[in-house]
Amino acid sequence: MTDHLESGHDKAAVAILGLGPMGRVLAEVYVDRGHPTTVWNRTAAKAGPLVARGARLAASVDEAVAAADVTIVCLNDYASTARVLRPVGEGLRGRTVVNLTSGTPSEARETAAWMGERGARYLDGAIMVPPPLVGEPGSVFLYSGPREVFDEHRATLTGVGDPRYLGTSAELAVLYNTGLLEMMYATMNGWLHATALIDAADLPVGDFAELAFGWFVPMMFGPSTAGLAAALAEGSYPGDLGTLEMNVNALEHITRTSVEQGVPAEQPRLMLEIAERAVAQGRGGENYLAVYEVFKKRAADAGHPASSMSR
Amino acid sequence: MTDHLESGHDKAAVAILGLGPMGRVLAEVYVDRGHPTTVWNRTAAKAGPLVARGARLAASVDEAVAAADVTIVCLNDYASTARVLRPVGEGLRGRTVVNLTSGTPSEARETAAWMGERGARYLDGAIMVPPPLVGEPGSVFLYSGPREVFDEHRATLTGVGDPRYLGTSAELAVLYNTGLLEMMYATMNGWLHATALIDAADLPVGDFAELAFGWFVPMMFGPSTAGLAAALAEGSYPGDLGTLEMNVNALEHITRTSVEQGVPAEQPRLMLEIAERAVAQGRGGENYLAVYEVFKKRAADAGHPASSMSR
Ligand SMILES: NC(=O)c1ccc[n+]([C@@H]2O[C@H](COP(=O)([O-])OP(=O)(O)OC[C@H]3O[C@@H](n4cnc5c(N)ncnc54)[C@H](OP(=O)(O)O)[C@@H]3O)[C@@H](O)[C@H]2O)c1
Ligand SMILES: NC(=O)c1ccc[n+]([C@@H]2O[C@H](COP(=O)([O-])OP(=O)(O)OC[C@H]3O[C@@H](n4cnc5c(N)ncnc54)[C@H](OP(=O)(O)O)[C@@H]3O)[C@@H](O)[C@H]2O)c1
Repeated sequence: MTDHLESGHDKAAVAILGLGPMGRVLAEVYVDRGHPTTVWNRTAAKAGPLVARGARLAASVDEAVAAADVTIVCLNDYASTARVLRPVGEGLRGRTVVNLTSGTPSEARETAAWMGERGARYLDGAIMVPPPLVGEPGSVFLYSGPREVFDEHRATLTGVGDPRYLGTSAELAVLYNTGLLEMMYATMNGWLHATALIDAADLPVGDFAELAFGWFVPMMFGPSTAGLAAALAEGSYPGDLGTLEMNVNALEHITRTSVEQGVPAEQPRLMLEIAERAVAQGRGGENYLAVYEVFKKRAADAGHPASSMSR
Repeated sequence: MTDHLESGHDKAAVAILGLGPMGRVLAEVYVDRGHPTTVWNRTAAKAGPLVARGARLAASVDEAVAAADVTIVCLNDYASTARVLRPVGEGLRGRTVVNLTSGTPSEARETAAWMGERGARYLDGAIMVPPPLVGEPGSVFLYSGPREVFDEHRATLTGVGDPRYLGTSAELAVLYNTGLLEMMYATMNGWLHATALIDAADLPVGDFAELAFGWFVPMMFGPSTAGLAAALAEGSYPGDLGTLEMNVNALEHITRTSVEQGVPAEQPRLMLEIAERAVAQGRGGENYLAVYEVFKKRAADAGHPASSMSR
């Protein structure tokens, strides 16, 4: 049974629960692509422009779920997801719910279990682009959960972005999303803090950004950087092209420069301390990737994984 | 007077002080390009392969400086630079010294002043690529100091990488280098920590790296990202496409996921605390770039800059 057969319409009926900046854009894209679109939001007033565009405002969550082939949840967190969907209870039986809300792997697992108990068909997902890119080329969404649920609704999900299926365990989308978001925040924070150093010296922050994103980041990080993962998997970090000691020096200079320039130094100081911890493990002559050994779940814990995920 | 005239040779005579992984490669490239190349290192034994390749080993720093049109310093820090060059004293008069050692802006300023007192012509610089890229296409070196010294030796400097001149103040190269390196370490640490999360769930770290560097980082960060600098310069962070509150939620999920997965959580927790500080400033409804206001040198300090640099 595919979406359009169920709805008796050539496009699947979609419900969007949550009209923050992201939920609003999801609803806009589905309306514009001709999907019968029902919206619901705690603060109903936010639906105004969407109703003017052609969406239907549901009076209750039950009504929204009942109207849709696919109910897409896009709330601030899983606690809100539970708060919003718990009252629906039996109304979820046989319905498909796709949750694009940010959370943790254990929250995704618990939600999948809860949905299963209520007879709902559940996919967990993550949106990998900001609102302006939703529905545009380059938009990517991650999904995990039962393969058949993904396959059945693939055409509908494709409307908002390239759907990448990660595996059957519900937590996979949230986990990959978490890792990629951490990279995004880390890179942003590196740039924002570095910009504060440049600004404190009365230098033009735009010129620095050109150097940083127009040249340095693309030069340092690209598809070939992925090859470094082999060293992490092997735990092999030869220092013949540059040592952790040399990098500790550089991190010490970054930290000291922050202090000299009157810019808060905790962010570089934490990176310095982490690198120093790797040196204290006897890795001073290895290369910078040895910092991975500080982050890695300790071998002592490895026998008791916090979660046992498989693909 | 240009390099080759002074040395009576068609290539300038170069001395390299410091034969760590980076100094060694600099010396190799100059030898291979036909420059008369003198090397010196505290641990002289490291010069063996370079002498076999055609370099001359100086018995003292004085001898190395005296032999060269351009003396390139590539040591671990400015303290070593001082230790190595102080004894030369009068021997520096009229010589050109290019210091590619990592340090802080105030160290660069002090070294430039000290060199000036001894009558040396001084450029400060920074190497923006790892050793294997030195002398290859895409290699970039940053320089700052007197324009005429840079212009005179430009051809020689070009041998190891595209030389980018930043301005007359000695500290500029070190400062830009510091900012770019902070971005490099921040991005690396984001990836290394995220990889630890993926590994703790027994997922393949190579697949994650492909997603991270093959797609996510190039999609999120590129030349157009530089346009965000305008918002920082204006202090304007409208939250209509996503709020700091939403990002605090995501950072809280990353931190909690680290704890759930048994991976040290300090790195995401510091990013969470920094974002929460911006929220405490009343910026919860602005976008993530508002974090810049936490890093920015405080307005109260702005009247007393730690350094007053101009280009
Ligand atoms: N914006 C982005 O750039 C972006 C990008 C990728 C992923 N995401 C993810 O998409 C999801 C939604 O993000 P967003 O930017 O739209 O905004 P958000 O601020 O994370 O979420 C706003 C939505 O949550 C609802 N909500 C908050 N507390 C609630 C409660 N106690 N009960 C019921 N509903 C509640 C809001 O309802 P009210 O309108 O009534 O307050 C609104 O619908 C998040 O998980 C986010 O991580 C966002
Ligand atoms: N390697 C890279 O990837 C890279 C990239 C860009 C920039 N850099 C910069 O290049 C510079 C050199 O880096 P590197 O990788 O070659 O290695 P390094 O470990 O930073 O420096 C090694 C050099 O410093 C010398 N040294 C250390 N302590 C000394 C002392 N007390 N007195 C005299 N000399 C001393 C060493 O002499 P001995 O041999 O006698 O110990 C050796 O010549 C650093 O500032 C670094 O930040 C390196």
